[in-house]
Amino acid sequence: MADLPDKRTAFMDWYLAVVDGAQLTDKRYPVKGMNVWTPYGFRARRNLDGVLVREIEATSSQAVEFPALIPSTEFAKEKEHIKGFDAQVYWVTKGGLTDLDVPLVLRPTSETAMYPIFAVWVRSHRDLPLNVYQIVNTFRYETKTTRPFIRVREIHFFEEHTCQANEAHATERVRSNLAAFRRMAAAFALPYLAIRRPEWDKFPGAFYSVALDAPIGEARTLQLGSIHHYRENFSRPYEIRYEAADGTQQYVHQTTFGLSERLLGAIVAVHGDAKGAVFPSAIAPYQVVVIPIPGTEAGEAPLATATEAAERLTRHGLRVHLDGGDDRPGAKYYRWELSGVPLRLEVGRREAESRSLTCVDRLGTKSRVALDRLEHEVPERLHDFDRALAARAQAAFEQSFSVARSIAELAGSTTVRLVAWCGSEECGHAIETGIDGALLGTPEEPLPGSFGAPGPCASCGATEGTRWAVAGRPL
Amino acid sequence: MADLPDKRTAFMDWYLAVVDGAQLTDKRYPVKGMNVWTPYGFRARRNLDGVLVREIEATSSQAVEFPALIPSTEFAKEKEHIKGFDAQVYWVTKGGLTDLDVPLVLRPTSETAMYPIFAVWVRSHRDLPLNVYQIVNTFRYETKTTRPFIRVREIHFFEEHTCQANEAHATERVRSNLAAFRRMAAAFALPYLAIRRPEWDKFPGAFYSVALDAPIGEARTLQLGSIHHYRENFSRPYEIRYEAADGTQQYVHQTTFGLSERLLGAIVAVHGDAKGAVFPSAIAPYQVVVIPIPGTEAGEAPLATATEAAERLTRHGLRVHLDGGDDRPGAKYYRWELSGVPLRLEVGRREAESRSLTCVDRLGTKSRVALDRLEHEVPERLHDFDRALAARAQAAFEQSFSVARSIAELAGSTTVRLVAWCGSEECGHAIETGIDGALLGTPEEPLPGSFGAPGPCASCGATEGTRWAVAGRPL
Repeated sequence: MADLPDKRTAFMDWYLAVVDGAQLTDKRYPVKGMNVWTPYGFRARRNLDGVLVREIEATSSQAVEFPALIPSTEFAKEKEHIKGFDAQVYWVTKGGLTDLDVPLVLRPTSETAMYPIFAVWVRSHRDLPLNVYQIVNTFRYETKTTRPFIRVREIHFFEEHTCQANEAHATERVRSNLAAFRRMAAAFALPYLAIRRPEWDKFPGAFYSVALDAPIGEARTLQLGSIHHYRENFSRPYEIRYEAADGTQQYVHQTTFGLSERLLGAIVAVHGDAKGAVFPSAIAPYQVVVIPIPGTEAGEAPLATATEAAERLTRHGLRVHLDGGDDRPGAKYYRWELSGVPLRLEVGRREAESRSLTCVDRLGTKSRVALDRLEHEVPERLHDFDRALAARAQAAFEQSFSVARSIAELAGSTTVRLVAWCGSEECGHAIETGIDGALLGTPEEPLPGSFGAPGPCASCGATEGTRWAVAGRPL
Repeated sequence: MADLPDKRTAFMDWYLAVVDGAQLTDKRYPVKGMNVWTPYGFRARRNLDGVLVREIEATSSQAVEFPALIPSTEFAKEKEHIKGFDAQVYWVTKGGLTDLDVPLVLRPTSETAMYPIFAVWVRSHRDLPLNVYQIVNTFRYETKTTRPFIRVREIHFFEEHTCQANEAHATERVRSNLAAFRRMAAAFALPYLAIRRPEWDKFPGAFYSVALDAPIGEARTLQLGSIHHYRENFSRPYEIRYEAADGTQQYVHQTTFGLSERLLGAIVAVHGDAKGAVFPSAIAPYQVVVIPIPGTEAGEAPLATATEAAERLTRHGLRVHLDGGDDRPGAKYYRWELSGVPLRLEVGRREAESRSLTCVDRLGTKSRVALDRLEHEVPERLHDFDRALAARAQAAFEQSFSVARSIAELAGSTTVRLVAWCGSEECGHAIETGIDGALLGTPEEPLPGSFGAPGPCASCGATEGTRWAVAGRPL
């Protein structure tokens, strides 16, 4: 039960220790960057996926699933796209004992799998909009250092692909996705910024890309996902056309919305603390752990009461774990704090006799809950915990920005920086050099707090047409 | 709206027409045997998976997910297993622009992915039993003719893998899996036989295999899944050992339980009829379709009432589709019958005025339901429909067997056959030749109906130790 590394000064060591300690994943699988979803980690993922499904389906999107293997001939149709991906895909070249005539790509993302089929699904304006999504694994031959959930080679991935009648409808879908993500992030208590990426950093083949970035301490950011407007960039090579009401043939405008298991990494990174992971109750594999505390005078009463409590809460629809193991209570507290369980109910002799349990939430708030009012009080405690967790994350978020007026001021940044930028690629790269990171782009939604007008470009000093840009060090 | 091919005389044409017509899958994806899960088909799959998850988790099994790619070095560890699979796996040989040092196999099944990790998870008898399952896609380089859901190259797959302390516990897990499958099959209203495969047809590496076979008309059978006892056949090469209570090191005994999207194919094949698919309500993508019937005198009333009905049933937790499109009512009836929706509610002027809807179930039973009692009456109608569907399937099942007393009697079989078998491989193959199919094995659970003692072997005439065996033509 050694202390965790310090989150502030040794972030990545801390992160890896928490992910390991909470048993969210097993990294011992014999392929680098391909990890095992353990029972505990899988539960978190399932809950997280449930939020994504609920929110995207509320915006008239339907689940589908396309094959994992894409013929190289289809993969190569959009030129920018293949350029962006061909150095990082896995190639299937053999089936059984024979070489394949057409090699297959293991999907790194599914544009090139879906769009030949969209071309047959979309015929008329009555087929639009086409909004479909899938939750599948994607594959990237990652050459950088891999990190659980943050950078892996087999990626648990959510991707929505839509076809719209025109550019304005596609722009409207981007907005709808931004609103859906706001609701998803609220369930995860994750503050973030929606940032339009600069031209040189947009998705291969996109007209523009809006990324969803979370500050995760110091100047670090983690890209949680992205929303892209493709205009006709894919519909032309894949010939996705429809007959408009006026009888003319039109190309669709497309959008995509991608999220990944990084969300789980971000939940660990943002909410975690010196004791380990902290899960908001919507995601927590177990929302409540019940711990009986035996004692020489206590007899079987604590276990009986703990069992009753666990069963009642389970029947009430909560995710509950009864830890009736042989470890000392202190060891159990340590383990379930490390694992991020929102509420702990302790049941000793006193609690069993008084039918009043000790309740400690993962942020340390202690209270008592009457066994006979458990089904009412525990959801209330979870609600209070979620609010406190969201407030803590929001406060940290608001502290995570500061303004830099010049390139010189960017050196050694200990927060994400807001800089005035004239919009030129040259000045953008100068800013990136200054912070030893990336110019993430310009906010697509209002910034938290008020920072006034941007003033002159931090690089060239131009005063006309500058905008606030966000600079940081993406993980 | 052409008639479907005849199910009895042209089964596979009928099956393909139903799967296409109901839009359960799209076969136009440009890789043979890799199909697209359409929105409608995906809903059926999601409901089906929900039943599997509910029933397997009720037997203390936990969800996990292991990587899709397996190093060839791990894949080769169990000799029978690799021999059984190496002609039908996909090989990943290149990552990005470079050849991989160790080629990777795209999982055809996950023994060789999981067991190196089980070897580190299992240390002590306190870690047993280890019961985990995953629902993932697997891949087989299938050289036979592919058929949607029945034989595909990317397979939606359920696989449970367990480690038990000894052979008896593993045998008990096989029994628990058989009981779990009985509950799953009840939700699908699918009758089947649990059949212990003959030695020459067991899973590569298994001690024994029990298959779950459904008769699907004539002498045809469809294998829905299988349950295997591995004894120590995998735990020895993968070194999955534990310290027993007495301090000795023991190898675990393992079992697996596999099911696939074939279940969906079987639901179509068994329940479908001259009008198309028929889904039991537990699986139906939509349980109810509501169809407003406009008319010159009806005005907006039918649509308003239909909308009210659909919204109320949706709020009540049912899966409902309101078909407010421009097609004629007859075309809508045809479409949703083809798609297998259990209940149709029709709302014309008369229904709107009387607030009493016409209800027609997919088996043709007509009734009226009061709009004000919709939430009570529709679930009752669904329940009645499910019972009638199960009774129809059970009656067909009981008609699907007949006894053959000799090899000669097997020729031209129009049902699955029961034959007395002495157990020898030679006689087994003689029976297979006789029926132009396969000896599926010996029943692991009692047969439906009573067939008396088996009598002398249909092949060699031996009278001692014969058993009933099942022979048929597996799809």
